[in-house]
Amino acid sequence: MQLIDLNTAAARLLSAGAVRILAHNHPDGDTLGSAYALAHALYALGKDVRVQCEDPSPAMFSYMPRGLAETERGDALIVAVDVADESLLGDRFAEIYGGRVALNIDHHRSNTLYAAENLIDAEASACAEVAGDLIGAMGLELTAHMAACIYAGISTDTGCFRYANTTARSHRWAAHCMDLGVATEPLDRAFFETDTKTYLTLERMAFDGLRYYCGGRLALLAVTQAMFRQSGSNDEEYIKLVARTRQIEGVLVGVAIREKPDGSFKLSLRSHAPVDASAIAARMGGGGHPRAAGAASNMPLEETIATIVGYVEEALEGTC
Amino acid sequence: MQLIDLNTAAARLLSAGAVRILAHNHPDGDTLGSAYALAHALYALGKDVRVQCEDPSPAMFSYMPRGLAETERGDALIVAVDVADESLLGDRFAEIYGGRVALNIDHHRSNTLYAAENLIDAEASACAEVAGDLIGAMGLELTAHMAACIYAGISTDTGCFRYANTTARSHRWAAHCMDLGVATEPLDRAFFETDTKTYLTLERMAFDGLRYYCGGRLALLAVTQAMFRQSGSNDEEYIKLVARTRQIEGVLVGVAIREKPDGSFKLSLRSHAPVDASAIAARMGGGGHPRAAGAASNMPLEETIATIVGYVEEALEGTC
Repeated sequence: MQLIDLNTAAARLLSAGAVRILAHNHPDGDTLGSAYALAHALYALGKDVRVQCEDPSPAMFSYMPRGLAETERGDALIVAVDVADESLLGDRFAEIYGGRVALNIDHHRSNTLYAAENLIDAEASACAEVAGDLIGAMGLELTAHMAACIYAGISTDTGCFRYANTTARSHRWAAHCMDLGVATEPLDRAFFETDTKTYLTLERMAFDGLRYYCGGRLALLAVTQAMFRQSGSNDEEYIKLVARTRQIEGVLVGVAIREKPDGSFKLSLRSHAPVDASAIAARMGGGGHPRAAGAASNMPLEETIATIVGYVEEALEGTC
Repeated sequence: MQLIDLNTAAARLLSAGAVRILAHNHPDGDTLGSAYALAHALYALGKDVRVQCEDPSPAMFSYMPRGLAETERGDALIVAVDVADESLLGDRFAEIYGGRVALNIDHHRSNTLYAAENLIDAEASACAEVAGDLIGAMGLELTAHMAACIYAGISTDTGCFRYANTTARSHRWAAHCMDLGVATEPLDRAFFETDTKTYLTLERMAFDGLRYYCGGRLALLAVTQAMFRQSGSNDEEYIKLVARTRQIEGVLVGVAIREKPDGSFKLSLRSHAPVDASAIAARMGGGGHPRAAGAASNMPLEETIATIVGYVEEALEGTC
């Protein structure tokens, strides 16, 4: 439960003979980029190292383990990266590693400090910035390959420098990675600019039914199980559709509704300031953040739509 | 026709009493950001200054002139920014200003050096980087507002740091702008993450007819005049559709076909390496760059499609 600083964390890693690095489940560019940047650094220092995750890595991050001979002998120091809470290791891994993480390296302000020692830098846009600082604190120069892992973490966690968590430090890290030889364009193309054919089919079906309410300030779409089946798409791809509802000109609230396999519905709300999406979601028994919230509904689809439209209308009263 | 360096250009601007800054036609974030950053700097130095452009500015850049009282007395020094050739001033402006530009500030390697003095920095990802350097060379500190103009130029010209022209210097400029207080997230949201309702309607119509050929390596869509009329969309919005054809997973060539008001067709080709889009376009009498090319067709739509599909099939033979 102890908070430690960068140099203490570096000393712990330097004194370990073997390190097992845990990424969170449904791994993204930041947990994997942080894990592999550190793994390559520790491997360069002659240590046994292994990266583990409950779920497989998306193909776009498959370059990261390149050149890393993962081995494990003796008692490894258990390190978690970008894992805000042990439960995010996944059910199976949380059971194995619960209470056993020695060093917790993260940037989430909400981190539950579940490890024996915890290095938390909530000013970092991505955990990969912390991993990069830590490699420096261990006295190592970053290689181009480590930099390519770190860049992936920063770029994906900031939505390629578009999200509000982007800082001057994020850009300085990106510049440093480019100085070290990282070709960012092919990476970002893989991270951001590829649509699957199944997603495009689902998007077309969903947009065919896109409806506007409240004078165009509310955009709403719904995806049924039949649409998932016909398109071959899935929940993970559907997330992109949710984001697009709020990107429409003049829209203050975007609502995406997804039919679950049991026939009930999950609502995802996105808003622009000053509309509080979590307050709207709360009226349907849900919750979340001011700009992104969710709720569930057991009503039929049209009744679900009428209900949420009514709540959004009330929330929009008084906004211009 | 003379090439000059940064300090010489700064001296020219410092010695002018009045400066007229010309942006290129169909103005984008870089020409406007460069123009207004310089205009604010010159205005702060007590000079008469005016920014001019043949076409109106898109609404997302309307913050740029804020606080600038544009005046014009006496003989102004005519300066062009981000204008690779005089013809890009637009027909009317090219007639007025042809042969009269005193100082040409740009980053295009293809710049035709049409002015009396030309400051060209082809290493800059955006002309706004050159404008920022020039403000420094005039001995001025950037204000937050000048930085917001410069950031717009860099962010839009690099596709928010995604395009291959992005450099470490682009990121260092972005970091510097953020240090000066630029809130980049609302700017980038306006630049990149807003879809108009008319665009979404056109996209839905076009995707309804999206076809794949060559085992999914060619994606093709067509937009008719009827679709433009029904959606209320336009050529400018259509450009986004062209880009999306190449972003589909597994697609090596994206083709978008647009019906012109006279009933003929314009083809836009986008490719991934190693496919040479310009070579394919050349077979239909068109041309362009390896990754982006175009051609015209007077054949009916289905014949146009059959022809381009045939050429793409031949080009893809031998690629995996």
